[in-house]
Amino acid sequence: MEKTSTDTLPLTMISSGKQETICIFGTGDFGRSLGLKMLQCGYSIVFGSRNPGMSGLLPSGAEVLSYSEAAQKSDIIILTVHREHYDFLTHLTEGLNGKIMVDVSNNLKINQYPESNAEYLDQLLPGAHVVKAFNTISAWALQSGALDASRQVFVCGNDSKAKQRVMDIVRTLGLTPLDKGSLLAAKEIENYPLQLFPMWKFPFCLAAVLCVFFFFYGAVRDVIYPYVHEKKDSTFRLAVSIPNRVCPITALTLLALVYLPGVIAAILQLYRGTKYRRFPNWLDHWMLCRKQLGLVALGFACLHVLYTLVIPIRYYVRWTMNNRTIAQATTKKENPFITSTAWLSDSYLALGILGFFLFVLLGITSLPSVSNAVNWREFRFVQSKLGFLTLILCTAHTLVYGGRRFLSSSILRWYLPPAYIIALIIPCTLLVVKFILILPCIDKTLTRIRQGWERNPKFL
Amino acid sequence: MEKTSTDTLPLTMISSGKQETICIFGTGDFGRSLGLKMLQCGYSIVFGSRNPGMSGLLPSGAEVLSYSEAAQKSDIIILTVHREHYDFLTHLTEGLNGKIMVDVSNNLKINQYPESNAEYLDQLLPGAHVVKAFNTISAWALQSGALDASRQVFVCGNDSKAKQRVMDIVRTLGLTPLDKGSLLAAKEIENYPLQLFPMWKFPFCLAAVLCVFFFFYGAVRDVIYPYVHEKKDSTFRLAVSIPNRVCPITALTLLALVYLPGVIAAILQLYRGTKYRRFPNWLDHWMLCRKQLGLVALGFACLHVLYTLVIPIRYYVRWTMNNRTIAQATTKKENPFITSTAWLSDSYLALGILGFFLFVLLGITSLPSVSNAVNWREFRFVQSKLGFLTLILCTAHTLVYGGRRFLSSSILRWYLPPAYIIALIIPCTLLVVKFILILPCIDKTLTRIRQGWERNPKFL
Amino acid sequence: MEKTSTDTLPLTMISSGKQETICIFGTGDFGRSLGLKMLQCGYSIVFGSRNPGMSGLLPSGAEVLSYSEAAQKSDIIILTVHREHYDFLTHLTEGLNGKIMVDVSNNLKINQYPESNAEYLDQLLPGAHVVKAFNTISAWALQSGALDASRQVFVCGNDSKAKQRVMDIVRTLGLTPLDKGSLLAAKEIENYPLQLFPMWKFPFCLAAVLCVFFFFYGAVRDVIYPYVHEKKDSTFRLAVSIPNRVCPITALTLLALVYLPGVIAAILQLYRGTKYRRFPNWLDHWMLCRKQLGLVALGFACLHVLYTLVIPIRYYVRWTMNNRTIAQATTKKENPFITSTAWLSDSYLALGILGFFLFVLLGITSLPSVSNAVNWREFRFVQSKLGFLTLILCTAHTLVYGGRRFLSSSILRWYLPPAYIIALIIPCTLLVVKFILILPCIDKTLTRIRQGWERNPKFL
Repeated sequence: MEKTSTDTLPLTMISSGKQETICIFGTGDFGRSLGLKMLQCGYSIVFGSRNPGMSGLLPSGAEVLSYSEAAQKSDIIILTVHREHYDFLTHLTEGLNGKIMVDVSNNLKINQYPESNAEYLDQLLPGAHVVKAFNTISAWALQSGALDASRQVFVCGNDSKAKQRVMDIVRTLGLTPLDKGSLLAAKEIENYPLQLFPMWKFPFCLAAVLCVFFFFYGAVRDVIYPYVHEKKDSTFRLAVSIPNRVCPITALTLLALVYLPGVIAAILQLYRGTKYRRFPNWLDHWMLCRKQLGLVALGFACLHVLYTLVIPIRYYVRWTMNNRTIAQATTKKENPFITSTAWLSDSYLALGILGFFLFVLLGITSLPSVSNAVNWREFRFVQSKLGFLTLILCTAHTLVYGGRRFLSSSILRWYLPPAYIIALIIPCTLLVVKFILILPCIDKTLTRIRQGWERNPKFL
Repeated sequence: MEKTSTDTLPLTMISSGKQETICIFGTGDFGRSLGLKMLQCGYSIVFGSRNPGMSGLLPSGAEVLSYSEAAQKSDIIILTVHREHYDFLTHLTEGLNGKIMVDVSNNLKINQYPESNAEYLDQLLPGAHVVKAFNTISAWALQSGALDASRQVFVCGNDSKAKQRVMDIVRTLGLTPLDKGSLLAAKEIENYPLQLFPMWKFPFCLAAVLCVFFFFYGAVRDVIYPYVHEKKDSTFRLAVSIPNRVCPITALTLLALVYLPGVIAAILQLYRGTKYRRFPNWLDHWMLCRKQLGLVALGFACLHVLYTLVIPIRYYVRWTMNNRTIAQATTKKENPFITSTAWLSDSYLALGILGFFLFVLLGITSLPSVSNAVNWREFRFVQSKLGFLTLILCTAHTLVYGGRRFLSSSILRWYLPPAYIIALIIPCTLLVVKFILILPCIDKTLTRIRQGWERNPKFL
Repeated sequence: MEKTSTDTLPLTMISSGKQETICIFGTGDFGRSLGLKMLQCGYSIVFGSRNPGMSGLLPSGAEVLSYSEAAQKSDIIILTVHREHYDFLTHLTEGLNGKIMVDVSNNLKINQYPESNAEYLDQLLPGAHVVKAFNTISAWALQSGALDASRQVFVCGNDSKAKQRVMDIVRTLGLTPLDKGSLLAAKEIENYPLQLFPMWKFPFCLAAVLCVFFFFYGAVRDVIYPYVHEKKDSTFRLAVSIPNRVCPITALTLLALVYLPGVIAAILQLYRGTKYRRFPNWLDHWMLCRKQLGLVALGFACLHVLYTLVIPIRYYVRWTMNNRTIAQATTKKENPFITSTAWLSDSYLALGILGFFLFVLLGITSLPSVSNAVNWREFRFVQSKLGFLTLILCTAHTLVYGGRRFLSSSILRWYLPPAYIIALIIPCTLLVVKFILILPCIDKTLTRIRQGWERNPKFL
């Protein structure tokens, strides 16, 4: 009886000269593109249509029949109609028993229906083997062959042999099938192509808010203040000088926010004396988008590096230095070399370079192919140890940048401190708390809690 | 009857102490390396040879027998002889019935024969299960363990159980099998190791032509012209100054050429009033190598950034600025600060920085592991929206660079305009046309055409 | 009889409403986390425990029974106890016959036991189907969903149907199973999570030794020597100037060491007249960590680029240039333009830029996802041809940097030559030897040896 199952069919069919017939229900754009592609890959195609006579645009070589006739021609039926029209299938139930029904449908909104389209189809046709596939592929990409983003075809289904056959077809079309398990995964697969960077929304919004705030803060201190007090037009600072303040501040703040939830979680666990109570939702969500926060921070750090390195090419900087030299030459004033200033200037640059270098390393290890190649211990080592080292270096970079000017009151303008002082609040606090948490006595308790120990076991 | 199939064999054999026997036909270099590796991984190896007595170099532990004797020892036979010598197998046909024949052969040229070697073998031995595998692995890499580029073993075959067994062997050897479907894929698999960046040839040649042209153009304007007119030796400009003109121009032109075919395709579709007619071949080919064009452009953009950032370290620049300052100091001439120049200089730098940053982002998202992790909608958003933004920023960067000098006639040398003006022609035209195409009235027609609407349906 | 095998079970169970029951032996942290995750994914969970009454912390919804009772509830048993306690299973042998036993255990040290835990379990329970899985997943990651490094679950086992069922569970939990073949792979899978960058240890240590040596060398020449001879405090050079000597020297030396073993191997093969004798172990090990050596070298090259690009921003550099200009302006001394100096300065920068650019290209092609996408021929082209070109460019960059100062004796301080002269020894020697090796007469012999020819075949 094994012989009649789906298992033995493909061999016979393929070995007798690539004549496997596939049925496509629906003659819309996607159906046509898929049919054409399959014809090119050596399959026979039968289209099932409401009005077989009216379908003029189909790829040549394909047959067009009524639904029930087409269904008889193949044991694999690809369903390229919208979910709202699935009802017509109930009239064909008998003819579809034992067939492999491939659901390729997508919705217009995430979680549009209570159950996924494929599960709905499975309920409509309990006798068929429903497989979800091809929904992440665009018709245009199939036609043009430009399949950069979509070589991966997620496949799921309850019948593993049906799934295997669909995956073989996917491979024959030059695509990469990815087995996602049973039909339970269909909802996730259907939501996938509708997403637009869902994990990046919070980091982007946060970064945008920080940018706008610090941009205006900088504009007030560096453009409006000089204009009010000295009638000096320094609007040109909006192009490079102020962005070069905004970028490092945003980067440092976001980097600190990557490590803040871990510290909050540790405090919460210490306070509760157990790890068996869920964190609040906002903390969970925050912890899950730490990677994205870090990468956005890295983007701002890169911009800061570029903005800094072009400084000596800027007209304003060249003009200023030129004029200072001329003034000194004219007045023959001595300009003594101050070793401590050289130390401050050089160590501020060195800290920044090392911090940025480690930051880029962190970014590279978060590339999917690299993080897949490391184990959990290595990933933790890089992301936690190197990550904190990066934060320490970047914070030190900012502290040394301030240098001796830090506590002089002349740096206040309209009682506003320079933006970098504000930027230092979160990282410095975080580092102090983290330092307390890794003191042996506290670290021991925390490690015990994380290994399952509880202060008040009866609580649960 | 299930018991006698290939399915149950491996279990019995492996569980009774890793004694599975594999037969290798051919005692050449690859056969020996593969045999040695398999011995190390716990397999028993039997070599089949024309002259079993003459094969002295085989790894110790392996048996050497005649072809027909060796074939009896195992149900998996790895064939490591050249396609020209496959004839000898016809004498063994009976002994090979039901065996798994693994074809590892490669050819010397792409598409050397009308059918792939594995399909040819399948025709020779209709009773055997032919599986294509291991052809992408080099003998040297197998021996040395340095398998960086070739951990992936493409496997294809018509019998899924035979394929499964070969894939298990591949995994045991520490390699990664990649199921490519039926034997139809063998041709592609055999061509694969013979390719040398086929998609990159056109972008590289184009970039080379652009580079050489603009290098000579720059040499004429900046080296030969000053020499002829002022007898000034500025040959040193060939090392940094002129490359730093060539790189941005090539990058901008190539970036524009990435987006040009999309615009041409849109115009073609508008003109034809349908999307159901194939584009000309040159356009198809051009569209398929857009990614490579973009990455070559990114390479030139990176070089431009590096060349620009070293400007202040150059002896020539330091000498020029130094002398200008001395001259001003000596003549005590005033050097007023021009806000508009500061604006031009800063915004030109800021536009360049932002454009380059987005360009690098585009490059990162085209890394295989990153582009696999995004869906089609996200990929289109990045490559299309961010791509055009990059092009706009880079074009604006070049326009502002020209600044006020643009229309003064003094910039012509021998009637040759500066190279950056030539470089602006394609991107500016492209952006204007694109701007027209996204006007609501035209965009609506185009969207309808792309959704399947046709102006003259009878045409088809 | 096929009906009673593991093959048909999942379908019935999943299709009747996700009620598949899984048994977990052990109520420790990992067992609880896994149980909770499985409950969330729709499985029924039964815990097996020594004292079913004492287990209060289990996720709600899970049943707790004695080991033997729990085993009867499911045909998949996940064993989350330490290897030392596997003995208790011998009392249950009969009840476990035909069950799928999933071994999730890890050890504390690499190669702690002669055989892997999974193979030990297989010996204890010859009637069960042992599958190794889940050992690379951390309990914390399962709970929090932060599965960056550990989405991959390595699975191995001798029974392919048992393996398939475990892989389906892995997929249902949202993880990616990776079939590693038979139980032979269990040892490797168990060692995997205990590793901390094993291939990187040698390159890192080597780089650290080089860095420390050249740092002190630089400190002696540039800080201690001026202090002793001129009482000048130049300690500030420790922050940027000396690191910017150490980085390029380390990078160039490591890059040369990437290509040195290949050259040594070629000489060894030429000398022995055969390729069929093993290289010494140190050479094998060295060849296997070339990629890591190269990437560490690239890291230092990046640092060198950053350190170089900030030069014009440094206080010391600005002060020096400023003072020189003032001195010249005051004394009204002419400062003639020397074309040869401009040539040296510009070509040194251009060589460095091109070398660094190719170096970064090499680094990008060694990203796992990129190197997987190229074939062996392309990989060799990039790593060998482009690699040597990079080495040539970087060596030339250093040579031109030295420029005319090279042979003047005034550059010696305490008989110590500048560090870059020392750094040039290995690369220059290497390039000369490589140049000799690619001379046609020697290259022909080497190619023949590599194709299997031997000078003294009787030797073997």
